[in-house]
Amino acid sequence: MKCGVSPIIGFRFSLYPMAANFVEVIKGALEQTDTSNVWMHTDDVSTVIRGKQVHVFNVAKAICLHAAKTGEHIAMSGTFSAGCPGDTAGDVYLEKGDEVANIDTTKQYVSSQFALYPMNNPDYMDVIYQEVDRAKERGVFNESMHYASGIHGDIHDVFAFYEESFTHARSEQHKHLVMTVSMSINSPSHGGR
Amino acid sequence: MKCGVSPIIGFRFSLYPMAANFVEVIKGALEQTDTSNVWMHTDDVSTVIRGKQVHVFNVAKAICLHAAKTGEHIAMSGTFSAGCPGDTAGDVYLEKGDEVANIDTTKQYVSSQFALYPMNNPDYMDVIYQEVDRAKERGVFNESMHYASGIHGDIHDVFAFYEESFTHARSEQHKHLVMTVSMSINSPSHGGR
Ligand SMILES: [Ca+2]
Repeated sequence: MKCGVSPIIGFRFSLYPMAANFVEVIKGALEQTDTSNVWMHTDDVSTVIRGKQVHVFNVAKAICLHAAKTGEHIAMSGTFSAGCPGDTAGDVYLEKGDEVANIDTTKQYVSSQFALYPMNNPDYMDVIYQEVDRAKERGVFNESMHYASGIHGDIHDVFAFYEESFTHARSEQHKHLVMTVSMSINSPSHGGR
Repeated sequence: MKCGVSPIIGFRFSLYPMAANFVEVIKGALEQTDTSNVWMHTDDVSTVIRGKQVHVFNVAKAICLHAAKTGEHIAMSGTFSAGCPGDTAGDVYLEKGDEVANIDTTKQYVSSQFALYPMNNPDYMDVIYQEVDRAKERGVFNESMHYASGIHGDIHDVFAFYEESFTHARSEQHKHLVMTVSMSINSPSHGGR
């Protein structure tokens, strides 16, 4: 396992189109997204994007939204990481400005689940409860469940919550934070939303 | 977030068939698997199974293998959890015996990635490095990467490694362990394996 220096955020994810033309949907979503602000690498299982937090979340949302626009049932599952120790790689992408490359306000319902793992922090359960409360305040909380919390709503509200939560669940003292997310879009279970 | 009592293992996962008939593939895999040894609940995003470790891993592998036999490109992504604090639910499934319900030795190549998150453990990076060494010893290590490690081989070797690693990465002192896995089967990237 290789990890990132403190200011670098990483998101290792897979995009799953439940469709025979899954290769085209994935490639199309990646091509339609401006990924110039992040370092990106794809292998046979997943894709990882790394850079400043603002760009990592912007690119993740754009890829998800482009895939959703095909109308196919798609899912995105992945892990956001910050402050992972044991890093070796320096990265020029931290020198990018803060202006996001992808702007698209298309509405899209997302049902998702997330879990926070603040590493080496004795008070980690307090951090988790605080962020679940935040989801309720932001109007995106869906339901409690074993090992995760349900988050849903418009894709822009959902991603805004995830970015805000990821910011607040780590600190100078507890830099290493992991957040898993699993999103479902255009599911037959969502009744056409 | 609700969590499990110490002896209960949970696996919250999604099965993703990259096929138009994804509903049938998912339902078929669940129906063909004997899930009588685990508590199971499915919602619009994922499925959670809970019980004794031996049964949770056995059921997870059986579901994955049944889906793989359709020949479709499928993925399974999820999180194994043990010792999560804050639990409320008692569970009768801990009284099940240790004999597994699903036995199927069909060979199937799996390419996967995993990450271990030993919670509230100052020595967590040592635990992670130890388990990566174990993967190399077991012959299932594929490659190092940011935020995860690549694990591949026959599905039975891959699951045996995951169960062994999940056992050794936690202790009486450090009960709360999380392990994310993301598996890819019958991928066009795997050249027919
Ligand atoms: Ca095969």
